[in-house]
Amino acid sequence: MATEKIILDCDPGHDDAVAILLAVGDPRIDLLGVTTIGGNQSLDKVTYNARAMLELAGATDIPVHAGCVRPLVRKLQTAAYIHGETGLDGVDLPEPSRPLDDGHAVSWIIDTIMNNEPQTITVVPTGPLTNIALAARLEPCIVHRVKQVVLMGGAYNTGNSSPCTEFNIQCDPEAAHIVFNEDWPLTMIGLDLTHQALCTHEYQQMIADANPRLAPALNGLMDYFRLSYQDEEAFLDPPTHDPCAVAYVIDPSLITTRKCKIDVELSGALTTGMTVADLRAQAANDCTSQVAVKLDVDGFWKLIASAVSNLH
Amino acid sequence: MATEKIILDCDPGHDDAVAILLAVGDPRIDLLGVTTIGGNQSLDKVTYNARAMLELAGATDIPVHAGCVRPLVRKLQTAAYIHGETGLDGVDLPEPSRPLDDGHAVSWIIDTIMNNEPQTITVVPTGPLTNIALAARLEPCIVHRVKQVVLMGGAYNTGNSSPCTEFNIQCDPEAAHIVFNEDWPLTMIGLDLTHQALCTHEYQQMIADANPRLAPALNGLMDYFRLSYQDEEAFLDPPTHDPCAVAYVIDPSLITTRKCKIDVELSGALTTGMTVADLRAQAANDCTSQVAVKLDVDGFWKLIASAVSNLH
Amino acid sequence: MATEKIILDCDPGHDDAVAILLAVGDPRIDLLGVTTIGGNQSLDKVTYNARAMLELAGATDIPVHAGCVRPLVRKLQTAAYIHGETGLDGVDLPEPSRPLDDGHAVSWIIDTIMNNEPQTITVVPTGPLTNIALAARLEPCIVHRVKQVVLMGGAYNTGNSSPCTEFNIQCDPEAAHIVFNEDWPLTMIGLDLTHQALCTHEYQQMIADANPRLAPALNGLMDYFRLSYQDEEAFLDPPTHDPCAVAYVIDPSLITTRKCKIDVELSGALTTGMTVADLRAQAANDCTSQVAVKLDVDGFWKLIASAVSNLH
Amino acid sequence: MATEKIILDCDPGHDDAVAILLAVGDPRIDLLGVTTIGGNQSLDKVTYNARAMLELAGATDIPVHAGCVRPLVRKLQTAAYIHGETGLDGVDLPEPSRPLDDGHAVSWIIDTIMNNEPQTITVVPTGPLTNIALAARLEPCIVHRVKQVVLMGGAYNTGNSSPCTEFNIQCDPEAAHIVFNEDWPLTMIGLDLTHQALCTHEYQQMIADANPRLAPALNGLMDYFRLSYQDEEAFLDPPTHDPCAVAYVIDPSLITTRKCKIDVELSGALTTGMTVADLRAQAANDCTSQVAVKLDVDGFWKLIASAVSNLH
Repeated sequence: MATEKIILDCDPGHDDAVAILLAVGDPRIDLLGVTTIGGNQSLDKVTYNARAMLELAGATDIPVHAGCVRPLVRKLQTAAYIHGETGLDGVDLPEPSRPLDDGHAVSWIIDTIMNNEPQTITVVPTGPLTNIALAARLEPCIVHRVKQVVLMGGAYNTGNSSPCTEFNIQCDPEAAHIVFNEDWPLTMIGLDLTHQALCTHEYQQMIADANPRLAPALNGLMDYFRLSYQDEEAFLDPPTHDPCAVAYVIDPSLITTRKCKIDVELSGALTTGMTVADLRAQAANDCTSQVAVKLDVDGFWKLIASAVSNLH
Repeated sequence: MATEKIILDCDPGHDDAVAILLAVGDPRIDLLGVTTIGGNQSLDKVTYNARAMLELAGATDIPVHAGCVRPLVRKLQTAAYIHGETGLDGVDLPEPSRPLDDGHAVSWIIDTIMNNEPQTITVVPTGPLTNIALAARLEPCIVHRVKQVVLMGGAYNTGNSSPCTEFNIQCDPEAAHIVFNEDWPLTMIGLDLTHQALCTHEYQQMIADANPRLAPALNGLMDYFRLSYQDEEAFLDPPTHDPCAVAYVIDPSLITTRKCKIDVELSGALTTGMTVADLRAQAANDCTSQVAVKLDVDGFWKLIASAVSNLH
Repeated sequence: MATEKIILDCDPGHDDAVAILLAVGDPRIDLLGVTTIGGNQSLDKVTYNARAMLELAGATDIPVHAGCVRPLVRKLQTAAYIHGETGLDGVDLPEPSRPLDDGHAVSWIIDTIMNNEPQTITVVPTGPLTNIALAARLEPCIVHRVKQVVLMGGAYNTGNSSPCTEFNIQCDPEAAHIVFNEDWPLTMIGLDLTHQALCTHEYQQMIADANPRLAPALNGLMDYFRLSYQDEEAFLDPPTHDPCAVAYVIDPSLITTRKCKIDVELSGALTTGMTVADLRAQAANDCTSQVAVKLDVDGFWKLIASAVSNLH
Repeated sequence: MATEKIILDCDPGHDDAVAILLAVGDPRIDLLGVTTIGGNQSLDKVTYNARAMLELAGATDIPVHAGCVRPLVRKLQTAAYIHGETGLDGVDLPEPSRPLDDGHAVSWIIDTIMNNEPQTITVVPTGPLTNIALAARLEPCIVHRVKQVVLMGGAYNTGNSSPCTEFNIQCDPEAAHIVFNEDWPLTMIGLDLTHQALCTHEYQQMIADANPRLAPALNGLMDYFRLSYQDEEAFLDPPTHDPCAVAYVIDPSLITTRKCKIDVELSGALTTGMTVADLRAQAANDCTSQVAVKLDVDGFWKLIASAVSNLH
């Protein structure tokens, strides 16, 4: 079976946690390593969470490299109101047995891309884009050497952290500006798509049933996530953002996309951190970037259930 | 029949021209006067066009007052690429018999609102908002004295003059900021709505058939407008923006709206002039402003046909 | 004696109060009227203060027209921390005998300029520029009809309300942008100049001695102003900003100026409201604007003493 | 003799070239290495120039590490209009005998700071601050481990690349924002200071006379630099910016400084890249940053002459 090599750059976070399970469990993904970035919670917490999730998944062969503690220019903000004090409130996780790997995430990302064959690695950021932006500035050659970037972040219509901005991008808009303006194939899996990935009670049951060993953790994650979204964003069920990006790498047919130019606003009083996608009829469509538009919801949850069932 | 008193503040412009016909022809509208503003073309041209359209409509009792030649802060830009050199290219109009009325549009707007009963006048701007903003700053009492403002402008999703801005608002974003931040009932009829008001060949035929005398002018208007939109914005049929605002005053049931806060970005590199509407689920909905969401397309064109048929 | 007709647009304010005395008392000034603008305090307070200062000066023939209650786009901010709750704390003023004049300041400014001979009127704004900006937008012809604009506001080096902004301009930067970008002869009397106009105890004594009737009021004004500046801005003596603008109209030889382009920043995170003067060696100097650089301090205070001595 | 260890991060450039000679020639400086950054010219050109200048100075023991090719967010702009196509037009330089050192400048800066004793290394940037900013983000520990940062860049009054911005800062304002907002002792040697360091014919003669071997190169540098400044910035003699920063490290008594907070504007229409220094009387002065105010001009040029005389 052909596999896709990915680097998962994340800030777990409940939905990042599911993205890790999907990346580890699906046989079509070759997870080269996990890198972490301050975002949903502080760097130390999300790094611990990444290691603990890999432990839970039985994937202690996957290296974890810690990245930047803060955004390029703006002050760090976290999303404790969604993810709790630990960043993964609501679930008991095993102690990680594998020590944190040496080397900064940015250096490891650069080395990994430069030491693999060209066009073989997909970078999957699901947190603020600080690490990826720094890697592109320190080693510009990675831009044409990766296969693609598939990121969770942004929104072309309605935002979450403000009326028109999504949290990951708004955390470090300058990093996002760097990433969106580089000339690599880039797919933006934004809120427009991920707000379709609602974890209803039925889908939660389905993925918990897929793996009795993991069921308590999965239910703990999703119960907490649901309550956060009910209290903070008036959702009935939680939008499970981050695994959508991994799902797109595994099976692009699950997500309809549309080619368009995307840029990031840096100086707006109301719009800083907005991903400005040009979806006008007259806009050019010969570009290397695209936005995700429509999710095959049922297919998405079945993909996750299948991956989870593989985690013995 | 109960009538709604309106002030139409416009910059004709092909779709403003249809708005004038609708306002004159529909018996439920009492058109107190037309005021003009530089926008689709220069002030002198749009003022002439307003007078000529009233002449064509046989409405020489309606006063026309010229307003501001330019936006508050930004340089004047026009839309000759859509509306042509005259602002109403493609149609032969009669010479206006009524001279231009004395008095600046802003003064006339203030006086008219202050001299009518409170809560009786609806202000309908269909161009840049300079006149209305200046009126609100010069006489703040008008804000609580008008019945409502129903304006064509803005977009909560996709723009036209840029990926996320609409032309009228982007022309004078500071004026729009003033108007959107005042505490009057305000309905934004934006591109989200008006891009549903496409003048297909069938609808064009219907409104032309409604009044044989006006048919050549209506066909001239719409043929030119269609070609502009085909060439410049990759539309098949032209979105007939401005009469949607008048239609909402006549029959609100034609347009579904949603309450939300709306603000205007003034300092973005990519987003200046964007109308930022807060459509998040968690957003407050106890506000005095709303955006137009869905048009009863068939009902809209029948309303126009009916109004046109009254213009003898 | 040749006189200069001026319109004084102000927000008294302790230094505006001195500007009124200077304008009334100096025989070379023909004060056509005083207009007021919310700034140092709310519009109603500064308007009352203007009338009371004219009463004190025995100048009940001078009309006072109230202008705008707030800036164009930004929220109103006042300088109660400098001028106190009344805007003129520290002095007992007589009740104005002349009623407030009818008509909005902006209309009166336009009418006065249009009804006087071209090139005869100097506009002297010493508060936020809202009234002047609205007048220029409502009647663009005033721009080439005035003789000049001599305003107190701005700074080309160090600010007061922030490191690089001066209070008047920062209150309504959009209005300032309008005024500075019009093509009229404009002299900016900024902090660079007015921080030289320190009212030492010696100069205070001199102007108080010039008119025993006014001495209590002058001492009350200056004692309060000194304490404000000591407490709030770490000055020993208060910079007496606004009369510098009137002084320049009376006797330009008192103030050295330098021609340069001046623009106003509207979108900076740190600099909004900054007057950006191009003082580089290579900058063009064929412009209609100039900044004030150096004050003949002794000549300035003698001018004030002389004017005050004329107020019987 | 006590020596100061410095890292010189530069983009030679005529004045950077003199800074290199000063750093190599003065016995009180221990130049650990030179790092380069795209700025006055492209990275490859300025890196070659740095190596050639060290060759000329006989300092082939000094490593040179190349850094970033472009700013963090903005597009690269160079100053060919001042420094010519090579970045060092006007002078014949020897071929560098030492190959370019391996390792990215940012990594070398981090390693050098972390492997030396704390508080022993002074970082001296004289180009855009991209390398320094990336180092601080990748290894935050360097911020409290360096002794100080003494940079050439910025201006608290008049700029050069625009009315209020200096070229180095304006090239990469986001990097400057990072550097100025970190909590290290920082001295800004801005245009306010360096425009006092004019290389008159007399001073040029003095430094050329100090070393007959280097005289042709020094005269070539300064003749070209003078013509650039005459043509482009209306100076009679060229301001020799960059060695001022090195001079301050050698002998702080040559430069009067003033403590103040400094921040960098990122979103202004006219002011992006401005270093906003708070020089108001009421501003706090208990900060870790300061601006350079006054140069001992004669002492400065004697320092350079003395250093040059040591280069055998």
